[in-house]
Amino acid sequence: MRIHILNGPNLNLLGTREVAIYGKQTLGDIDARLAEVAEELGVEVDSYQSNHEGALIDAIHRQRGRADGLIINPGAFTHTSVALRDAIDAVQIPTVEVHLSNIHARETFRHHSFLAPVCLGQIAGFGPASYELALRALVEALRDRGEPS
Amino acid sequence: MRIHILNGPNLNLLGTREVAIYGKQTLGDIDARLAEVAEELGVEVDSYQSNHEGALIDAIHRQRGRADGLIINPGAFTHTSVALRDAIDAVQIPTVEVHLSNIHARETFRHHSFLAPVCLGQIAGFGPASYELALRALVEALRDRGEPS
Amino acid sequence: MRIHILNGPNLNLLGTREVAIYGKQTLGDIDARLAEVAEELGVEVDSYQSNHEGALIDAIHRQRGRADGLIINPGAFTHTSVALRDAIDAVQIPTVEVHLSNIHARETFRHHSFLAPVCLGQIAGFGPASYELALRALVEALRDRGEPS
Amino acid sequence: MRIHILNGPNLNLLGTREVAIYGKQTLGDIDARLAEVAEELGVEVDSYQSNHEGALIDAIHRQRGRADGLIINPGAFTHTSVALRDAIDAVQIPTVEVHLSNIHARETFRHHSFLAPVCLGQIAGFGPASYELALRALVEALRDRGEPS
Amino acid sequence: MRIHILNGPNLNLLGTREVAIYGKQTLGDIDARLAEVAEELGVEVDSYQSNHEGALIDAIHRQRGRADGLIINPGAFTHTSVALRDAIDAVQIPTVEVHLSNIHARETFRHHSFLAPVCLGQIAGFGPASYELALRALVEALRDRGEPS
Amino acid sequence: MRIHILNGPNLNLLGTREVAIYGKQTLGDIDARLAEVAEELGVEVDSYQSNHEGALIDAIHRQRGRADGLIINPGAFTHTSVALRDAIDAVQIPTVEVHLSNIHARETFRHHSFLAPVCLGQIAGFGPASYELALRALVEALRDRGEPS
Amino acid sequence: MRIHILNGPNLNLLGTREVAIYGKQTLGDIDARLAEVAEELGVEVDSYQSNHEGALIDAIHRQRGRADGLIINPGAFTHTSVALRDAIDAVQIPTVEVHLSNIHARETFRHHSFLAPVCLGQIAGFGPASYELALRALVEALRDRGEPS
Amino acid sequence: MRIHILNGPNLNLLGTREVAIYGKQTLGDIDARLAEVAEELGVEVDSYQSNHEGALIDAIHRQRGRADGLIINPGAFTHTSVALRDAIDAVQIPTVEVHLSNIHARETFRHHSFLAPVCLGQIAGFGPASYELALRALVEALRDRGEPS
Amino acid sequence: MRIHILNGPNLNLLGTREVAIYGKQTLGDIDARLAEVAEELGVEVDSYQSNHEGALIDAIHRQRGRADGLIINPGAFTHTSVALRDAIDAVQIPTVEVHLSNIHARETFRHHSFLAPVCLGQIAGFGPASYELALRALVEALRDRGEPS
Amino acid sequence: MRIHILNGPNLNLLGTREVAIYGKQTLGDIDARLAEVAEELGVEVDSYQSNHEGALIDAIHRQRGRADGLIINPGAFTHTSVALRDAIDAVQIPTVEVHLSNIHARETFRHHSFLAPVCLGQIAGFGPASYELALRALVEALRDRGEPS
Amino acid sequence: MRIHILNGPNLNLLGTREVAIYGKQTLGDIDARLAEVAEELGVEVDSYQSNHEGALIDAIHRQRGRADGLIINPGAFTHTSVALRDAIDAVQIPTVEVHLSNIHARETFRHHSFLAPVCLGQIAGFGPASYELALRALVEALRDRGEPS
Amino acid sequence: MRIHILNGPNLNLLGTREVAIYGKQTLGDIDARLAEVAEELGVEVDSYQSNHEGALIDAIHRQRGRADGLIINPGAFTHTSVALRDAIDAVQIPTVEVHLSNIHARETFRHHSFLAPVCLGQIAGFGPASYELALRALVEALRDRGEPS
Repeated sequence: MRIHILNGPNLNLLGTREVAIYGKQTLGDIDARLAEVAEELGVEVDSYQSNHEGALIDAIHRQRGRADGLIINPGAFTHTSVALRDAIDAVQIPTVEVHLSNIHARETFRHHSFLAPVCLGQIAGFGPASYELALRALVEALRDRGEPS
Repeated sequence: MRIHILNGPNLNLLGTREVAIYGKQTLGDIDARLAEVAEELGVEVDSYQSNHEGALIDAIHRQRGRADGLIINPGAFTHTSVALRDAIDAVQIPTVEVHLSNIHARETFRHHSFLAPVCLGQIAGFGPASYELALRALVEALRDRGEPS
Repeated sequence: MRIHILNGPNLNLLGTREVAIYGKQTLGDIDARLAEVAEELGVEVDSYQSNHEGALIDAIHRQRGRADGLIINPGAFTHTSVALRDAIDAVQIPTVEVHLSNIHARETFRHHSFLAPVCLGQIAGFGPASYELALRALVEALRDRGEPS
Repeated sequence: MRIHILNGPNLNLLGTREVAIYGKQTLGDIDARLAEVAEELGVEVDSYQSNHEGALIDAIHRQRGRADGLIINPGAFTHTSVALRDAIDAVQIPTVEVHLSNIHARETFRHHSFLAPVCLGQIAGFGPASYELALRALVEALRDRGEPS
Repeated sequence: MRIHILNGPNLNLLGTREVAIYGKQTLGDIDARLAEVAEELGVEVDSYQSNHEGALIDAIHRQRGRADGLIINPGAFTHTSVALRDAIDAVQIPTVEVHLSNIHARETFRHHSFLAPVCLGQIAGFGPASYELALRALVEALRDRGEPS
Repeated sequence: MRIHILNGPNLNLLGTREVAIYGKQTLGDIDARLAEVAEELGVEVDSYQSNHEGALIDAIHRQRGRADGLIINPGAFTHTSVALRDAIDAVQIPTVEVHLSNIHARETFRHHSFLAPVCLGQIAGFGPASYELALRALVEALRDRGEPS
Repeated sequence: MRIHILNGPNLNLLGTREVAIYGKQTLGDIDARLAEVAEELGVEVDSYQSNHEGALIDAIHRQRGRADGLIINPGAFTHTSVALRDAIDAVQIPTVEVHLSNIHARETFRHHSFLAPVCLGQIAGFGPASYELALRALVEALRDRGEPS
Repeated sequence: MRIHILNGPNLNLLGTREVAIYGKQTLGDIDARLAEVAEELGVEVDSYQSNHEGALIDAIHRQRGRADGLIINPGAFTHTSVALRDAIDAVQIPTVEVHLSNIHARETFRHHSFLAPVCLGQIAGFGPASYELALRALVEALRDRGEPS
Repeated sequence: MRIHILNGPNLNLLGTREVAIYGKQTLGDIDARLAEVAEELGVEVDSYQSNHEGALIDAIHRQRGRADGLIINPGAFTHTSVALRDAIDAVQIPTVEVHLSNIHARETFRHHSFLAPVCLGQIAGFGPASYELALRALVEALRDRGEPS
Repeated sequence: MRIHILNGPNLNLLGTREVAIYGKQTLGDIDARLAEVAEELGVEVDSYQSNHEGALIDAIHRQRGRADGLIINPGAFTHTSVALRDAIDAVQIPTVEVHLSNIHARETFRHHSFLAPVCLGQIAGFGPASYELALRALVEALRDRGEPS
Repeated sequence: MRIHILNGPNLNLLGTREVAIYGKQTLGDIDARLAEVAEELGVEVDSYQSNHEGALIDAIHRQRGRADGLIINPGAFTHTSVALRDAIDAVQIPTVEVHLSNIHARETFRHHSFLAPVCLGQIAGFGPASYELALRALVEALRDRGEPS
Repeated sequence: MRIHILNGPNLNLLGTREVAIYGKQTLGDIDARLAEVAEELGVEVDSYQSNHEGALIDAIHRQRGRADGLIINPGAFTHTSVALRDAIDAVQIPTVEVHLSNIHARETFRHHSFLAPVCLGQIAGFGPASYELALRALVEALRDRGEPS
């Protein structure tokens, strides 16, 4: 089982800015932790980050026939990108939406997600741990699908 | 460390209705699974369910000085209860909001949560696994708080 | 065939307040009239009133496997209770929504019903006669379902 | 006592289209059933259908001094016609609004009725039985008015 | 294959008013051009215009069992008539919506079409050529339906 | 100079209903008074009433090349008819909108006029005198246009 | 009978700016014309202009017990002043609202009048003639009130 | 004269949480102070608190024929409970709405009160003193009613 | 301790208009009563009324370094004046907002106050007694501030 | 005459996903068909696809002085990109907007197009045939412009 | 070249309140600085401040034929005064709108400016320097106008 | 001190399109002028333009530790890009937002800026001079920060 992690705009700065709020962990630290959890769960993970909406769409397309599941932190594109939503919908790969912060407790324009309706679920507010939770949730959901009900 | 689980209206019916959608697990099954995870994590859990908004508020109040963290699935009260929000805000116990379904992919009136702004985070869409994810997320967050940063 | 009648908040005061508007009939009078109609139709009826949203939800749950149909006058909960809607939706018992007054001719916040989308239909504006009409409508609808089409 | 039944746009097609949803009854079948109920109740009924808003307004005007009550299924005009509302308001004949389907459970633009505020009440969702319920409700309401309170 | 063309309010004035904007072509000229295209495509066309919403509804009803497809320029009724929408929906004849002007570039109240959701598609902004495009589009769509996929 | 008066839905009932509010004058009385004023002003007037939107549109079209000005009381169509607006806009005859009542002091849905933006002006609230004021205003405006500025 | 004319902000500039749109008439010219009409009607008129909302309120108060009717062109205060509305409502002097331009055909924020609901009626769009029409309308309305109905 | 004080959800926690904001006074302290003021004014007071909407409605009903006036701090139910509004409206006991904080200076969803339109008045923002002011205001209003005007 | 009372537009008419609603008390009567209460409380009061928004702003500015507290009945400026809000905010003198009527039970546009967010609290609906309550509330609040907490 | 075809995000997947809905045709198939039509019409066509908004803007800029007309299927950017609108507006090349599906019959957020107001017209709902229709419409419109009117 | 500076409500308090936020500069200091810049640019400046909307309108009118340009800081009137907008529009003197703070980053009701659409441009957020920037911008714009393009 | 200038979509076309509106200056001309002003002010400037949102985000990130201030003309991204806002917020470099045109006087969707709340201020409407004003404003603001207050 292969899981691909997608990170949207400004997440490359993680751990190097606003440390008091977001903590000292970088995307690299998160990837390292996800590798450990993946090993524990017996799955493969790799990841990609871009500040370009188009590059993220291309990346989602590339996963057709390759990834069994996607984890996406769409950053600010959560609230503005219908194109990313359509990309997820088109490739039909089960996807989990994650957020470091609790977007529902921030500015009103961050409460709405264009991607949520085409995702399995959403995990928001647990900092870097949001990713680990998403990986566990996604793998469990994919395994449930594989079993006879 | 003690974690209290609160379940709102109609969740007592879980596992006995709309099995095709919500699965066969009952609240009892979820409690049993949470007990296992709690043991793994070295914490205590107990739970409460009510269809009465007032009873849930009373229950939250009772946890002052007792629980270190709360997990709440407010059911339909998510979208209508300012009083539950105020109760969580008043007792100042770290709280995680969970939902079985992905509320952001359902009717528009289910997209907004009155409770989210006073919770640590929200996990929605993973069926019974949402609770287990919430327990892991909450315990990790509480332990991070306890450690010197 | 068993029909359960549910009455929401403030309806216990019926017939003892604002007599000029609502008439002199009490809930007891309405129950008596419904008993006559039920006998004519060959069905059983009983009823329940509460000012507590939670108690009404509990009452709906109790009817699973007991009542063949529900008639509900949700009173003010019509406009605010997603939890009652979910309760009706969960038990999957055919339900008719009734109102003494024509809610569509009153304040704007009374025009919208959270319950209507999960009910068979709505009857509003005929005073105590709304209940009798609802009973006739519900019994006819249930019998149509029972017959081969 | 004379009751006039008005049917709005597209209702002439009833029973000949979308039979699975609306059933096989035509307006003629409904009229026949209403004639039986009218006889039972000791009242006279006749009916009119038009796809023309203006023709329906003319028809309402013609009933001044003739009909004691009106039953109107305004069809799609429910949501767009202020002129029909004004016509009912002008002739001051007690009117009941009926709908075959539960308009409150359909598209949002069908939830609002311009006519409801000038009608006695609204009955929606019971298919052809909505008319029979309306006739019973209207006759009872008119007789209540005629009696000393 | 028979195609019926419907024109709504004020379109009878075409070619005789605001020539600078709408050009010198009349509805008669458009009909003549459509007849040529119809011959080329091997289909029959005829057309109807009315300023009366009710007359247009009647005309749509009359096409049941006669026309294989409809082209409708609803004029101002585009934005206000739920009844025309219901008529198209009821007769279940594939319909294309056309507009001479690009309604999406005009006043805000002209951007929304009540009819679009029950039509195959919409062509707007090409003057009289909109009709010819609609005829080609409709005939192609109908022929595609007739072929095994 | 020829002025045509158009009256919309329900205005045929004027003077015979709600006399306490609208007074005892009928449309006939208003026409008689307008004839006197017309003679004083040296212009010709005639009038038309219909409850049919389409008939009013036809009537506006017929005035092309005949009337120098229009006075229209659109009744309830004021708030719903884009088609009447387009008709006035198409024939390019200077038009004054009149209302018996002060529509800006009534229900919110009566505050907006679709016709006002294509009329010279609006006179509302003076009962039958609104028409006489409109006639004086229109004739003066037309004569001002005819004079060199 | 005494009529007081009130003019709001920027109207002092009339006739000296944007002559192409508003014409060459000044407030002085309008006053002169109103004096002629007043003489014809056998009433007295005087007028006041201010750019200060407070000064206009003071002026309205001063007319208590002096003026029998008011004509007010509130200019831009039409859309923003609840205080002027309350002043008119408080003195209980019948008032007519006038506008030089057709405010319903201008920017959306000019369509709503806070004053209209406490005025007899509104006349808009006839340039300086709006005032003369208002004077005739007001005098007629006041005389109708004085007569036995 | 008997005055009943009602306190809504979370107010039982007063004085034991967020002391910096709400002060150290408990509901018991407030009751004690109100008893003193009541003695000064020559009236009787007693009070009730519940986190249950239904219990508050029951409590209001019980005061029929017992209390001459009500003081209610509806807490979070201010913004969500149509049922409490209807209860106050039904028992027809003069009621004053109080709030510890200035709700008009908090989150937008706290600006609107469903109860205010059926209360005599509202006092908000003075902490525990809001209750004392309400008691004085209510007693004065009740005594004014009792006196010949 | 010095308290300044500010009264906004149209309040100069108090007691001389709409006596049935607002009572016979004038602003002078209110001032007299406030003087008595001030003496009882051991504070000084004086007052100012203007129909001019600018004059009220000037008056607020003049109180810097003079008044310890302000009581303002902003009348209709409550709903429209950002400038008065900014004036109160700028001088940083504790302010109480009062209203004779219960503004939350009147027209929708009177429910919102621009001033409330910069005031200590709001008292509405108790007629002239609103001022006395405000004076007591303000003096108590100021004295609480002066005491060590 | 040269026509450039632009395709937005996710359209590269056409024909390889959701075949039941969108059919088996790829963008390559559409290009091939457009080449045939172009030859028939005596014009040149070429095309470009990108998932990057910026790349599409660059492509539009490159066509200045090269293409006589543009056909654009903006995909999801239809609803979110003001920048694409500005690009089309800036280069002043006549443009036709096309959509495979009838966007007016889909989710509400797909009904609004930022690009439509700067395009000649819009064709939506005819699958791959939408492009051919757009090519015919655009060539005809460009030739009409070239001819003396 | 003469430039007139207008300052709206509460700006007279500048430099004497909230020094931490707005700095220690008074309007006098700003005038002194503007005089220096004016000398550098070879233009004349003078200024006016009022808390009265009417006085500001009068001041704008007085500049007709005197000032070549206006700089206005409308303070709170930015968001509420249509009358100031009309005054600027009427005198047709090029105007620049300035704000000390970045109004677009404050409360939502401060984001909209009624004056902006009739001004050359807006400069907001640079404290006292906003005025100097406005003066440079205005002089440059006026000189550009004077030169052949 | 180093200042970086960022230009968003379509600004590369400046000076070569719509010359009548935007003038003949290109971005190159603006850069040249800014170089002169920079020399006068003793600061360094360089600039970057892209039509790609992602490229602009990358560019902002690159300036961390390099630029002391940013000037950004976000073009159409002003109204749609939450990601650019987050980028500016993340790098914590003082930023000024500039616009050639007065966006507050254009279409409604151009009035709101997602970037303004994270910028020092906004300058809009002065054509190429907006940049020069922004450079002066930014340098002054940065120097003020560097000085002891």
